[in-house]
Amino acid sequence: MNDLQIFPVILCGGSGTRLWPRSRAAKPKPFLPLLGDSTLFEATLARCDRAAGFAAPVVVTGAAHVAHIEAQLHDPAGAQVIVEPSARNTAAAIALAALRLPEDAVMLVCPSDHHIADTAAFRRAALAAADLAAQGWLVSIGIEAQSPETGFGYLQRGEPVGPHGFRTARFVEKPDLERARQFIASGDYAWNGGIFAFGVGTFLRELEAHAPAILAAARAAVAAGHGEGHLFFPGADEFAAAPSISVDYAVMEPTAHKAMVPADMGWSDIGSWDALHAAVDRDADGNSPRGAVELVDCRNVLVDSDGPRVSVIGLSDVVIVIDGNDVLVTSHAGAQKVGKLQGAANQ
Amino acid sequence: MNDLQIFPVILCGGSGTRLWPRSRAAKPKPFLPLLGDSTLFEATLARCDRAAGFAAPVVVTGAAHVAHIEAQLHDPAGAQVIVEPSARNTAAAIALAALRLPEDAVMLVCPSDHHIADTAAFRRAALAAADLAAQGWLVSIGIEAQSPETGFGYLQRGEPVGPHGFRTARFVEKPDLERARQFIASGDYAWNGGIFAFGVGTFLRELEAHAPAILAAARAAVAAGHGEGHLFFPGADEFAAAPSISVDYAVMEPTAHKAMVPADMGWSDIGSWDALHAAVDRDADGNSPRGAVELVDCRNVLVDSDGPRVSVIGLSDVVIVIDGNDVLVTSHAGAQKVGKLQGAANQ
Repeated sequence: MNDLQIFPVILCGGSGTRLWPRSRAAKPKPFLPLLGDSTLFEATLARCDRAAGFAAPVVVTGAAHVAHIEAQLHDPAGAQVIVEPSARNTAAAIALAALRLPEDAVMLVCPSDHHIADTAAFRRAALAAADLAAQGWLVSIGIEAQSPETGFGYLQRGEPVGPHGFRTARFVEKPDLERARQFIASGDYAWNGGIFAFGVGTFLRELEAHAPAILAAARAAVAAGHGEGHLFFPGADEFAAAPSISVDYAVMEPTAHKAMVPADMGWSDIGSWDALHAAVDRDADGNSPRGAVELVDCRNVLVDSDGPRVSVIGLSDVVIVIDGNDVLVTSHAGAQKVGKLQGAANQ
Repeated sequence: MNDLQIFPVILCGGSGTRLWPRSRAAKPKPFLPLLGDSTLFEATLARCDRAAGFAAPVVVTGAAHVAHIEAQLHDPAGAQVIVEPSARNTAAAIALAALRLPEDAVMLVCPSDHHIADTAAFRRAALAAADLAAQGWLVSIGIEAQSPETGFGYLQRGEPVGPHGFRTARFVEKPDLERARQFIASGDYAWNGGIFAFGVGTFLRELEAHAPAILAAARAAVAAGHGEGHLFFPGADEFAAAPSISVDYAVMEPTAHKAMVPADMGWSDIGSWDALHAAVDRDADGNSPRGAVELVDCRNVLVDSDGPRVSVIGLSDVVIVIDGNDVLVTSHAGAQKVGKLQGAANQ
């Protein structure tokens, strides 16, 4: 690693219902040990830790999650936790982080609710992206697209830029299945996983050019903010004035200086129980039992029990989750509908 | 009904594991409200109640079940409860009941863990069987065989006897599938559901002829026994001497005087969760939710929860049972293996 300072900017927003009943408003997905012993937040921090040459992290989150972050930020020295007074989407969240960092540093923006199996591949891509960012590019990590997913945005690859990167020809919002298939067939598209490398000064200039209201609100909120230890509280009224727009729309689509670094790193957004099942360890029959579980004649069955003994006979491609007073039993195909259950809505 | 006294003899033995986790050693199948509000034991009593012309029942059971029987014997006047000191199979159990009844009465022997949907059809068959029993026949109710089950014994129909009955040509133990199919195709076979009508004196004479050791042990046990209210406790040492043989082997197979009365009465032995599912009410999609249940895209799914909220997506032909700290999820086909689960063994 060269002498570039790369600050991980960890975004901990939202609270989905797609992994209900394990994930709930009070214990959202980043803070759960969904894959092994570490939570997704802990794993995100560990991928970008000091030992690997990264600077101390900047965590941007809401007040509801601060207690989880304090409990799981195991190396707080030098870290900053920016507590958003309200949720104003990713452009404003990243602006807060940029305004709290040196202008000549590079930010590596990472969602905290994704899984990356291959840490070494992630770090190689992150360093390559940071190098391009230091040269003035706004860089996306382009996730190797494995299948024609319609739930992700895509990045189209353009001309090469440096040894590992490419211009980003364009951002494509979630496509329909036919277009997604065309993207996969062409080989020129990667998934947009929301991982970015930006020079701090570059990002602020591009934000000023393309979304000045967001920058102005973030700047005013930081000016009106106060710190408490490693926590920083931006001004609430000032931040509320920021338009709620994703960084993709606000900066990445309009900018002329976008690039991408492709990465094949075992990425998953763990966006549903079947996606989680694909990411966790399985036995020879494809089963993933966790807790007191007895499986008979089962294939590709995930069971995750927080206590009760679960006995399963003769099922395939099924997910069973026990959490407190809730029991979820879903086919893999049905897992996409978990967020629409009444149970998930009335948690 | 004529002036014949028909005494229901209700057998409450055993404690299977095939409906685990709802059925357990401490709360066995006859005493659970598996179909609606009544337990199978209550329903058995109600089918043979005083209002329908039956005499007061004789219940034969083990000590472990007496508390359940006391709680569910809602009309105890005249009833007897014989508490077996040990389990010695059905021939000895029926012998105890016979020895506590008038010689000129008729017994209607009924298991207490079966479901019969059509009470009127049952009573018609019971009266026809009792009439034949009063004429000296040992009568089985022959259950209309719906499918080539290999888990039941079969009765082969012989010459007609009276307006509703037939000689029983032979008893057939559980056949293999090919023979079971032949039985169904021939139309001459009925299932042996363990429901019998016997003249008390006839039964005791036939038992003496074919299994004298059982009669001698039962007689000695009754002689050494004592009563407490409607409970009767046969002598333990005497009863322990009785060979443990089913009434089918001990009497029905060897006797020359066996007859059967066919009955199509919606019978089920509720021998597994899929059999229970076939017997309970279903909605238009074949689902049977019981408790706090949300079903999405489900067909033929039975859910029975004693508390937790159960959400199910995209499954067919599945049974889900929540009981205390146990959760069972099984395919209909897998339901036959429930009794072999470690959970069922180590309840």
